[in-house]
Amino acid sequence: MERDKLLMTPGPTMIPPKVLQAMSRQIIHHRTKEFQAIFTEFNTKLKTVFDTKNDVLTFASSGTGAMEASVANLFSPGDKVLVGTIGVFGDRYVKIAKAYGLDVDVISMPWGQALDPEDIKKHLEEDVDNKIKAVIVTHNETSTGVTNDLEAIGQVLKGRPQLLVVDAISSLGGIPLKTDEWGIDVVVTGSQKALMVPPGLSFASLSDRAWDAVKQSKLPKFYFDFLAYREKLNDNDTPYTPAVTLIIGTNVALDMILDDGLDKVYARNRRLAEATRAAAKAMGLELFAEPTHASDIITSIKGPEGIDVEKVRKIMNTKYDIMITGGQGKLKGQILRIGHVGYVDQFDLLKTLTGLEYSLAEVGYPVQIGSGVTAAEKILKEGV
Amino acid sequence: MERDKLLMTPGPTMIPPKVLQAMSRQIIHHRTKEFQAIFTEFNTKLKTVFDTKNDVLTFASSGTGAMEASVANLFSPGDKVLVGTIGVFGDRYVKIAKAYGLDVDVISMPWGQALDPEDIKKHLEEDVDNKIKAVIVTHNETSTGVTNDLEAIGQVLKGRPQLLVVDAISSLGGIPLKTDEWGIDVVVTGSQKALMVPPGLSFASLSDRAWDAVKQSKLPKFYFDFLAYREKLNDNDTPYTPAVTLIIGTNVALDMILDDGLDKVYARNRRLAEATRAAAKAMGLELFAEPTHASDIITSIKGPEGIDVEKVRKIMNTKYDIMITGGQGKLKGQILRIGHVGYVDQFDLLKTLTGLEYSLAEVGYPVQIGSGVTAAEKILKEGV
Repeated sequence: MERDKLLMTPGPTMIPPKVLQAMSRQIIHHRTKEFQAIFTEFNTKLKTVFDTKNDVLTFASSGTGAMEASVANLFSPGDKVLVGTIGVFGDRYVKIAKAYGLDVDVISMPWGQALDPEDIKKHLEEDVDNKIKAVIVTHNETSTGVTNDLEAIGQVLKGRPQLLVVDAISSLGGIPLKTDEWGIDVVVTGSQKALMVPPGLSFASLSDRAWDAVKQSKLPKFYFDFLAYREKLNDNDTPYTPAVTLIIGTNVALDMILDDGLDKVYARNRRLAEATRAAAKAMGLELFAEPTHASDIITSIKGPEGIDVEKVRKIMNTKYDIMITGGQGKLKGQILRIGHVGYVDQFDLLKTLTGLEYSLAEVGYPVQIGSGVTAAEKILKEGV
Repeated sequence: MERDKLLMTPGPTMIPPKVLQAMSRQIIHHRTKEFQAIFTEFNTKLKTVFDTKNDVLTFASSGTGAMEASVANLFSPGDKVLVGTIGVFGDRYVKIAKAYGLDVDVISMPWGQALDPEDIKKHLEEDVDNKIKAVIVTHNETSTGVTNDLEAIGQVLKGRPQLLVVDAISSLGGIPLKTDEWGIDVVVTGSQKALMVPPGLSFASLSDRAWDAVKQSKLPKFYFDFLAYREKLNDNDTPYTPAVTLIIGTNVALDMILDDGLDKVYARNRRLAEATRAAAKAMGLELFAEPTHASDIITSIKGPEGIDVEKVRKIMNTKYDIMITGGQGKLKGQILRIGHVGYVDQFDLLKTLTGLEYSLAEVGYPVQIGSGVTAAEKILKEGV
């Protein structure tokens, strides 16, 4: 019988029925007391999830729009920035910065590894005149399943004039991210991952010194002009028609996250990740990410020698209605990636691991049926 | 008993239940055959509604995003453009062009009037070296309720090197717009008006010569980079995560529009507009827009001497759950605007006119109860 596909992807992630329901009501106009009451609540909850005292701006766009916005709003042509990249999404920030005519220094790690905060430190120390205006890093790189140590990178930046700009599109609301405490100046994220809402919203928070940079910026912008959004936010409004239904959905999803409690959400994702890693190992599979920085949002698994991982994915998808993802860019055909963030519980994960066992067996990989699931269950039964 | 507000606003407009239902399904991933099948249909139908053989690009953003995109993708710093403005949204194009460092000539009409194509002709003839690269106009100006004669403006541009760029955010799908036949090079629109979908999607179509301009453009862009969208469109894909649910909703809404037939939709809106204008006059009210160019999307009505129109709106909204809009910018407090586009039928309009009669009476305006409704009914009973 037809079933919804179980999305164990890094995004879009599954939408909770309560969120779908809230979004399926007849639309309300954004210039009404009813919407403004929702927008006020929504903005307050966003600050809690961002772990910041600063305003969070909301845009009708994909996450990439907010990445671009951070570049267009903070810098001027020729400004120097340092981008630390460990995969597809770090590379995207390099491309955006170059598209806007910035002078881009790049620290790039082999895929599967995290940034070494010492490398950033050294690079900044060599920049004796502080030509570098900002350090831009990805918090969680979904293309490789690696999480950077943002707290340590924040430590490196402490007391330095450079802004710290973070792509937290896949991480915010899924793993700890202490925006103010870790000294992060700009955090950008999107709706379709840990926030459990369809794609179409992006967000950005800015520190006071980031706002100072905005005032100096000479790059052209209009739709993503941060100052216009901040000004309207004071009136509980947006400069352009907001994506009303997605905001209403996010407002409900944020309640679900905060009712659970951020710490509980983080703990659940961590345990789901541990269970996934243990299951992979029990199935005789090798993990792709370096163990010290393996992501709690998404687990990357190397394709076993001689096994067509795209075929494995296809069987999971068509036969068992479970969608996981493969490799992006140069990792295409080489890895499998299982997302475990957002509206995902242990039974979703166990179903996924079962489907993985079946599908690996079907393509001739010598998996012991039940091995992965058993290993995961042992971890999951401790409860999350 | 609680009822959904009837939105007789220029946008967001009411969402048909079938569209809400389609959007309330569990989300599907955009990189699946299921979504790609929808996306293919959707793109074909969009071309029909745009009345063009060219590709239509879809962005996750408000309509303003597509306006900005047209500027960032077509021009280079210092390029000269001519913007014809007749209200708030024409002025917005001026601001965007200036934000991107263009050299902007402006033809501006008193609010309530349409552009005179002769003025554009004269301005272009005075530009003997063809320094002007493009003429940018609003098709339907919602702030004033005036529709420009786009066909005549297209005639002026015929055989000239300037591109014709049109903001059709409130008009496309609501009133006739023959993109290819009228020689319009770029048409931008949004989801939340005649297309009957929540805000969050914008669209742009480009002629071959507009694509030539895109290749010359040196302004920075990334998220709205037209070439990236066109390249991915060839693979039935988008460069960044699309707003999946809104695309699914639009796909259903486009079916509804095309099942009705564009001509029937246009005829209905025209008749609703005629009925609204007749009703206003029968109530002794004065229309704001010049009669020859009154919009069939939205009717603007002057506030009668001594009557607080904002209070009228408030009564309609709180007592009768009917939302119309007031004046924007310098027209605030001076006019009322009734939208009649999208998922609106004659009974929605008659309800609105009834509410308007009641509310005007309540603030002391000497309206003859039933006068507006009767005048409208006489026109509407001919059927649409």
